[in-house]
Amino acid sequence: MSKGLVVQKFGGSSVANVERIQNVAKRVVSYKKKGFDLVVVVSALGDTTDELIELADKINREPSEREMDMLLSTGEQISVALLAMAIHKLGFEAISFTGAQVGIITDTSHTRARIIKINADKIREELKKGKIVIVAGFQGVTLSQDITTLGRGGSDLTAVALAKELVAIECEIYTDVDGIYTIDPRIEPKARKIPEITYDEMLEMASLGAQVMQARSIEVAKKFDVPIHVRSSFSDNSGTMIIKEAKRMEDVLISGVTLNKNEAKITICNVPDKPGVAAKIFKELSENGVNVDMIVQNVSHTRSTDISFTVGKAEVHKTLKITKRVAKNISAGEVLADEDIARVSIVGVGMKSHPGVAAKMFEVLAHNKCNIEMISTSDISISCIIKKKFAEMAVKSLHEKFGLGK
Amino acid sequence: MSKGLVVQKFGGSSVANVERIQNVAKRVVSYKKKGFDLVVVVSALGDTTDELIELADKINREPSEREMDMLLSTGEQISVALLAMAIHKLGFEAISFTGAQVGIITDTSHTRARIIKINADKIREELKKGKIVIVAGFQGVTLSQDITTLGRGGSDLTAVALAKELVAIECEIYTDVDGIYTIDPRIEPKARKIPEITYDEMLEMASLGAQVMQARSIEVAKKFDVPIHVRSSFSDNSGTMIIKEAKRMEDVLISGVTLNKNEAKITICNVPDKPGVAAKIFKELSENGVNVDMIVQNVSHTRSTDISFTVGKAEVHKTLKITKRVAKNISAGEVLADEDIARVSIVGVGMKSHPGVAAKMFEVLAHNKCNIEMISTSDISISCIIKKKFAEMAVKSLHEKFGLGK
Repeated sequence: MSKGLVVQKFGGSSVANVERIQNVAKRVVSYKKKGFDLVVVVSALGDTTDELIELADKINREPSEREMDMLLSTGEQISVALLAMAIHKLGFEAISFTGAQVGIITDTSHTRARIIKINADKIREELKKGKIVIVAGFQGVTLSQDITTLGRGGSDLTAVALAKELVAIECEIYTDVDGIYTIDPRIEPKARKIPEITYDEMLEMASLGAQVMQARSIEVAKKFDVPIHVRSSFSDNSGTMIIKEAKRMEDVLISGVTLNKNEAKITICNVPDKPGVAAKIFKELSENGVNVDMIVQNVSHTRSTDISFTVGKAEVHKTLKITKRVAKNISAGEVLADEDIARVSIVGVGMKSHPGVAAKMFEVLAHNKCNIEMISTSDISISCIIKKKFAEMAVKSLHEKFGLGK
Repeated sequence: MSKGLVVQKFGGSSVANVERIQNVAKRVVSYKKKGFDLVVVVSALGDTTDELIELADKINREPSEREMDMLLSTGEQISVALLAMAIHKLGFEAISFTGAQVGIITDTSHTRARIIKINADKIREELKKGKIVIVAGFQGVTLSQDITTLGRGGSDLTAVALAKELVAIECEIYTDVDGIYTIDPRIEPKARKIPEITYDEMLEMASLGAQVMQARSIEVAKKFDVPIHVRSSFSDNSGTMIIKEAKRMEDVLISGVTLNKNEAKITICNVPDKPGVAAKIFKELSENGVNVDMIVQNVSHTRSTDISFTVGKAEVHKTLKITKRVAKNISAGEVLADEDIARVSIVGVGMKSHPGVAAKMFEVLAHNKCNIEMISTSDISISCIIKKKFAEMAVKSLHEKFGLGK
């Protein structure tokens, strides 16, 4: 009698070499021995994807997206075949499938396809035979049989979508860290692993710089209430459960502190204060594929105001070019870029019902002589843009003052 | 208006690196410019297949054949995607497909599958749109969507089968030699490229040691009368046409001389001369997967005889073990193995209507003081087993005496 189905997803670093593949096989088999049914989703080995991209780049700087998917999907296909062989070696039955073979049907947006539906009959059939089913992550197929890939974090998405479709009791995401922490442990040794976190908190943390999982897969997990367990493939410790409602929710004001040093601040000075101006700026940026993050505009007491926003550092050059052009058109003033900034944030569903959290945050920053340049808030998070040199000190102080340390 | 369809097949050495892939793209495009429709079949890049086999071997010495096919088929998928990108770069339309996508349906014999049928509608559709269609060689798919591979020489088979299905005017096999030669040019600089050769002659030459194409693809080409053009991917010279009836057939007695040094001779001494004994020996060998080539048994004047046969060198150890056991059972004498032998052969449809060819061959060998240990003949070939040290001299003499030199 099966104890239920578990979906396990192993990232590229978990299968980077022969020894690690064998370790993944051992872990999978240990679950099988305990009586679970298993669907295992695997990414491409180590740097395979990057190497294929590099090869393509040498041939065509602007490769067709369809052919890029054809090329990149081989990475995961290699992984699943090797993992199946490693499990066979341990004396267990396993069978590997590509995304196309298990019917992960997507739209036709090559390199960033969205899953439309999953025809999981083949998986159910093999599970019934007692086999461990291994599925290539990151890939799918269109209705006309073209191979697609799901974009960044695609393998996580495959795992969560399969867990939903097959009604798994849990979706385990194995990675090179052993869970979600109250703060980046590389910055603060007192960082504490969070045993449980809500989908919403995890979404905030993902968008604020925690790089464990892409927001996209968490959104799907939230939508269909799939319990996710983020844990390390190099240890047996339990990691962090991402679920609908954390049990200790009422007691916890703040779940974590995040830091993002990969953004730059752009300021347009003396923007004429009349309707439609902001729309003009951000429409132009979005049409050119620039992803704008925080936006701040103050009430103006004159006939003009300043608008500031943040973008990823890689997009600063492009953003400046576009923004300067628009600024001229709308008769605004100078456009300034500041890369010397950092975003510090606190996240927690607890702050919904506790006033004064923001005030406490500002106080902590002030106490550190740290000037706040921009502020942005959501239901369950508060972010401040500060000078980069204060960043580490700021997050460590926040971590301590909100009682997150060990 | 199209000048007709040409199928072009490029082997692994023709796409071993970026530069060579670009050269293949240029060649393909030059045909497109001339007005031909094109289906291009590609093998895996250079040593990719060997590298994947090595990786699998580290994980499981006896890998599942289904998973092996899953693994190896990625090699050709990488090639087709890269070639499509290279053709796009030259400004032409191209689309790549896996064996599964173009409906190359095979039986379920993984790693050595046989093609059952080809549903080429997808290819026809893309050709109609004016696109160059690129197909992964060596692979197919079962009716239940499992990926299969076709075994050695599989990409040639893919090309020939597609040429048949799509009624191509020619199937071009690009390789690293520029055609079939009257003798191995590494042995005899006077070797002459054969402009035309019949399927039957090519089949004999393939089985006698010429390694340009596997017998299997030639058999299919013969069956469906697909004209094959073997030529070099590194030059524009025309190569060798393999066809039903060579135009100059009547004039040519012998088409080529071949040499095979990869066999060993096994002799069972004093085999009791009674019915069923030979059957017992060769049934046992065949059941153990040993591929026996030449077999010679002389008329006996006593109550026992000697039986000799040849096997591939890699199988000598296994063969001796089996043969010694059987020899004991049938009360035969000693079993001897001789690896110091070579097989020299002459091939030509002309010998059918010309008596005295064999006599002339033996004369040439005798003139070189070369003793003949075994003789075997077919309709269009004669082979002699001789001591290895005579091998090169023997084939050079035969090449000269039968007038094949430049």
